[in-house]
Amino acid sequence: MKESLGPASTVYPEPVFIIGTYNDDGTPNAMNAAWGGIANENRIMICVDKGHRTAHNLVKRGAFTVSMADEDTVVACDYVGIVSGNDEPDKFAKAGFHATRSDKVDAPLIDELKMCLECRVISYDDDEMLIGEIVDIKADPDVLTDGKVDPAKLKPITYDPVNRRYYGFGNQVGRAFYDGKALR
Amino acid sequence: MKESLGPASTVYPEPVFIIGTYNDDGTPNAMNAAWGGIANENRIMICVDKGHRTAHNLVKRGAFTVSMADEDTVVACDYVGIVSGNDEPDKFAKAGFHATRSDKVDAPLIDELKMCLECRVISYDDDEMLIGEIVDIKADPDVLTDGKVDPAKLKPITYDPVNRRYYGFGNQVGRAFYDGKALR
Repeated sequence: MKESLGPASTVYPEPVFIIGTYNDDGTPNAMNAAWGGIANENRIMICVDKGHRTAHNLVKRGAFTVSMADEDTVVACDYVGIVSGNDEPDKFAKAGFHATRSDKVDAPLIDELKMCLECRVISYDDDEMLIGEIVDIKADPDVLTDGKVDPAKLKPITYDPVNRRYYGFGNQVGRAFYDGKALR
Repeated sequence: MKESLGPASTVYPEPVFIIGTYNDDGTPNAMNAAWGGIANENRIMICVDKGHRTAHNLVKRGAFTVSMADEDTVVACDYVGIVSGNDEPDKFAKAGFHATRSDKVDAPLIDELKMCLECRVISYDDDEMLIGEIVDIKADPDVLTDGKVDPAKLKPITYDPVNRRYYGFGNQVGRAFYDGKALR
């Protein structure tokens, strides 16, 4: 018999997305977001509070990037979730991040994060749901196996909203579109 | 220097959500969805193709549940992603699942899955984005620690869309809203 825990914004896994944008003065900005996921073919949805500097930036430039936080960058990725770009305009540099301009959209790639989506803003509505078209994905060669992203090398992290913890990926436990055939 | 991989519907982590609904004849149905996440406070977004029986069901009843696939149920959860409810009306039972009616919404809980969101349909638009209000969360007592969901007990899985693999959760690698303070 299951227990009732009440409503909450909890699923497993939740991502740790680092959203990259340019401020009005051209300096890069980054924030941490756990509410979001793939919305459709080559589309991403992220809930971005209107109060964030990132919200202002992405509307103005019509673009943003989404990098995957990983085990090697937990402290920096947590930092950009704690500190507001409104209070600390220099937060990107203080995180130890360096930016490279995307060749696809008007937004910065973060050199220290190894996989990044370059996105064009499709919509950003009153419900604070940002929808972006994934124009390209960029990744460091050292996280690829046979030209494809390998999570064992990328080491992405996931956010546990109940206990406020970050977890790494564990072992492979199955093959998708395969294991279920045993029941067919 | 990052390599360009082209556009794709890839983020890490992606969830393995099992959506539960009732068919027209009152039998339970289940499908597997990896495109989605939290959309806002107590709201979930999932991309559901209009062709699925689940799409018909959730519109008709105005309700659905979302259970977390876990390491103990990989085969069953993969199966309900491979087989269509349109082709195999009995897929829920063939997966080995048993249903308990939700006391909050007109949709089934899946006994074999240990954590479940009970959702009311807010909207389901032409972009196939389903938005639901999370009315309650139910969980088996044996996945709780001090009354809260503990991922070390729940053992949720995550989907790797690039390599079509399922991964378990690994070790805790950080504390959220804490580790970043070191840079402040």
